[in-house]
Amino acid sequence: MLYAKFDVRPKCKNPLLNIDMKINQIGELGLIEKIARQTKTDKSVIKGIGDDTAVLKYSEKEYLLFTTDMLLEGVHFPSLTHFHLRGGSGCGSEVKFFYNIGRKSLACNISDIAAMGGVPQHCLISVGLPANLEWKFVNQLYAGIKKIAQQFKVNIVGGDTIKSPKLIINIALLGKVLKKKLVLRSGARKGDVILVTGSLGGAILDKHLIFIPRLKEAQHLVNNFNIHSMIDISDGLVLDLSRILKQSKKGAKVYLEKIPISVVAKKEKDSLKKALYDGEDFELLFTAAKGTAKKIASEKLACIIGEITAQENVLESSDGTKLDINGYEHF
Amino acid sequence: MLYAKFDVRPKCKNPLLNIDMKINQIGELGLIEKIARQTKTDKSVIKGIGDDTAVLKYSEKEYLLFTTDMLLEGVHFPSLTHFHLRGGSGCGSEVKFFYNIGRKSLACNISDIAAMGGVPQHCLISVGLPANLEWKFVNQLYAGIKKIAQQFKVNIVGGDTIKSPKLIINIALLGKVLKKKLVLRSGARKGDVILVTGSLGGAILDKHLIFIPRLKEAQHLVNNFNIHSMIDISDGLVLDLSRILKQSKKGAKVYLEKIPISVVAKKEKDSLKKALYDGEDFELLFTAAKGTAKKIASEKLACIIGEITAQENVLESSDGTKLDINGYEHF
Repeated sequence: MLYAKFDVRPKCKNPLLNIDMKINQIGELGLIEKIARQTKTDKSVIKGIGDDTAVLKYSEKEYLLFTTDMLLEGVHFPSLTHFHLRGGSGCGSEVKFFYNIGRKSLACNISDIAAMGGVPQHCLISVGLPANLEWKFVNQLYAGIKKIAQQFKVNIVGGDTIKSPKLIINIALLGKVLKKKLVLRSGARKGDVILVTGSLGGAILDKHLIFIPRLKEAQHLVNNFNIHSMIDISDGLVLDLSRILKQSKKGAKVYLEKIPISVVAKKEKDSLKKALYDGEDFELLFTAAKGTAKKIASEKLACIIGEITAQENVLESSDGTKLDINGYEHF
Repeated sequence: MLYAKFDVRPKCKNPLLNIDMKINQIGELGLIEKIARQTKTDKSVIKGIGDDTAVLKYSEKEYLLFTTDMLLEGVHFPSLTHFHLRGGSGCGSEVKFFYNIGRKSLACNISDIAAMGGVPQHCLISVGLPANLEWKFVNQLYAGIKKIAQQFKVNIVGGDTIKSPKLIINIALLGKVLKKKLVLRSGARKGDVILVTGSLGGAILDKHLIFIPRLKEAQHLVNNFNIHSMIDISDGLVLDLSRILKQSKKGAKVYLEKIPISVVAKKEKDSLKKALYDGEDFELLFTAAKGTAKKIASEKLACIIGEITAQENVLESSDGTKLDINGYEHF
């Protein structure tokens, strides 16, 4: 079951009053909301649950960024049994598969740090491995992690290895950000222009395993422009934009005709729908004042796709159609 | 399959030359060794793979400590199906079970930070949850984590939630340590006395879910005494002592008659064997100069159980019997 993630949409207005409710009835967003509501932190925590990473006190000029991501066989990537790996021959594509999964597991986390305006530094890798998996595959898994770690100057400083019937990878990543460069989801202002760093849709068909985290782009943006809010698109444009809106207590108008659609998505039907709702693009979605946005767009660093409005949590398209802020079903 | 962890002993002298070898033939230690060997870090990493936590540059007087631990249903705790949870009635013991697992998942990490001489600060919680698990159980899982987080002043600052057929919990914990209080596994010196903070053996029967990380004890030790090396006992006295020996390039003589055996282990046959080889005690094992050790023992802070010798990687009992440094099979 590829990509059978939790449905992230809340399923009813106040799903958390009923303790007998099952997790799939509450949904991921409901779950996170509930957990966050009960969680107190001390004043060394600048931002806890609710952004791409946690933001922690560090030095006079910098904050620490701290994030984690878990990938599971059969949920975030296909089951290993599809490759007849156990006792299989280990052909090139199988080896590449493990390399790509390893690479992706760290890339997702780097993307989160980038979206805060920060740079990654140190990671811990926890893996659950089937006991009869061959070393060559594990070796490739780590080769993929190490390759991207090297590329983005991330130190692998430890981890945990356990036996598991299914392959599990959890990476925890530490980074840092200059205080004055920190960009939160909550910073969008009325009249801000919404931009995206690349084309969207259909990432599941290829890009999700080989995407390059937009660290360079994010650094260029925060170092040269005043970016008000930012997020990386992991769960789809509409859902991730709605996260900015919720945290910023704003609304948005999206110019449907201006959304950059990926080449892959263009070949499919419902290509706009794919660009709006598909996950795993890992492009940066951000907002900035009009003048700044125009400059950014003129330098071809990102495309303008909408504007921030004052109507809290209202997401509409340029033709006036309301978009369901919680997901893709009612498009 | 409770506690069906990897067998941590290396299975052959150079198991890693053969890439077709399976993970269970290499063993956890072999795996970690291989991964560590290939991993380069920059100078901001004081200690990477090979101790209880990673040690990272931080401020003038302090280091950051960074550690992670993954727990999996059916490996580190019994399968949920034992409790007929899916559609079950949710009696008290089931609820307590989740609470205890949550608590343990953070407690293990706190224990690692303690063993470095540090204090914990911030954690990220990744969980894999069965879609049909009831909220009340997840709530208890988090209640257990939050309780011990509160007790040890740890901020819960974020995490990841995914759908998983089996319950998975991965916690990443950040802490800090005064540079001059940092204690590594590698600091044991010839003539050092070996001490342990509590009785050992049979933890699997009860203690493993309810143990109290020895943070207070570790802080008292590093603040008042010169501790040369330290580790928390998670995989058994012999194996964890061997980790100190390997990192310190030393040997040890263990006074078998002086090893404190837990009340639970005493009721079993082979109680000494249990004290030597059972895991999950989470007591501190450490070494110090003779005079210091005597003072510590006289204050009843820990028991003397052996001494460090010059013979690299040789572990013997007081009667001259060699103990297999790699595990429990040849006792």
